[in-house]
Amino acid sequence: MGIQLDTEVVLKTSHDRAIETVTAALKDAGFGVLTRIDLHQAFQDKLGVAHPPHTILGACNPPLAHKAISADPLVGLMLPCNVTVEQTAEGAVVRVVDPEAMLGSGLDAGPAIREVAQDAAVRLRGVLRALRA
Amino acid sequence: MGIQLDTEVVLKTSHDRAIETVTAALKDAGFGVLTRIDLHQAFQDKLGVAHPPHTILGACNPPLAHKAISADPLVGLMLPCNVTVEQTAEGAVVRVVDPEAMLGSGLDAGPAIREVAQDAAVRLRGVLRALRA
Repeated sequence: MGIQLDTEVVLKTSHDRAIETVTAALKDAGFGVLTRIDLHQAFQDKLGVAHPPHTILGACNPPLAHKAISADPLVGLMLPCNVTVEQTAEGAVVRVVDPEAMLGSGLDAGPAIREVAQDAAVRLRGVLRALRA
Repeated sequence: MGIQLDTEVVLKTSHDRAIETVTAALKDAGFGVLTRIDLHQAFQDKLGVAHPPHTILGACNPPLAHKAISADPLVGLMLPCNVTVEQTAEGAVVRVVDPEAMLGSGLDAGPAIREVAQDAAVRLRGVLRALRA
């Protein structure tokens, strides 16, 4: 039933600490966090509903982004790479988007884009490995 | 060769004015702009390279986002909906992501997610129509 996009890891830490840990791991892999959406805060502010902490971090590797967007400006529709942190009973669930899956069978991306997506995917899988270690 | 995700419109205005116009059209359709990435600025700051103005706006309709994330927290990997503005010789090219295409054949989204994606897609196509008018 789930969207088959992700790989995930559960960190036995607080939400805020998980965000710090993930941000550091992304930095080690060459990704800066350019955007942050605290969904729970948005839901509280806009809808007046309580929601467990769930944060969307927008990660970007500038050289890869530049290469991709120079090859095809449409790739801007798929940037940045999302990494989410959700507080659950088991801990902080960290999910990392798979850039190659984003270029799934419905899309017609050229070889330069596929190469960048593969590079980003390898790096992001490394982030997951680092978080599991 | 292009990524087949988008629909686009060219506005004969400046980059900044286009961003204002798009933000207003999104608001009329129930989408707030939660994030903004000025790619050209990031490329200048991080890589020292000049790039034409290209801005990624992260648009979110809170009720739809809440419905989707409550149905499946994985959907956080696909939020917000990107709308990009790129300065070109023809004008400001506005591209709007297609949320239904994002749930393409490679993904296994449940009916609640598909319903939300369809609702968002209808609204975003309305934004494009409004921008063309």
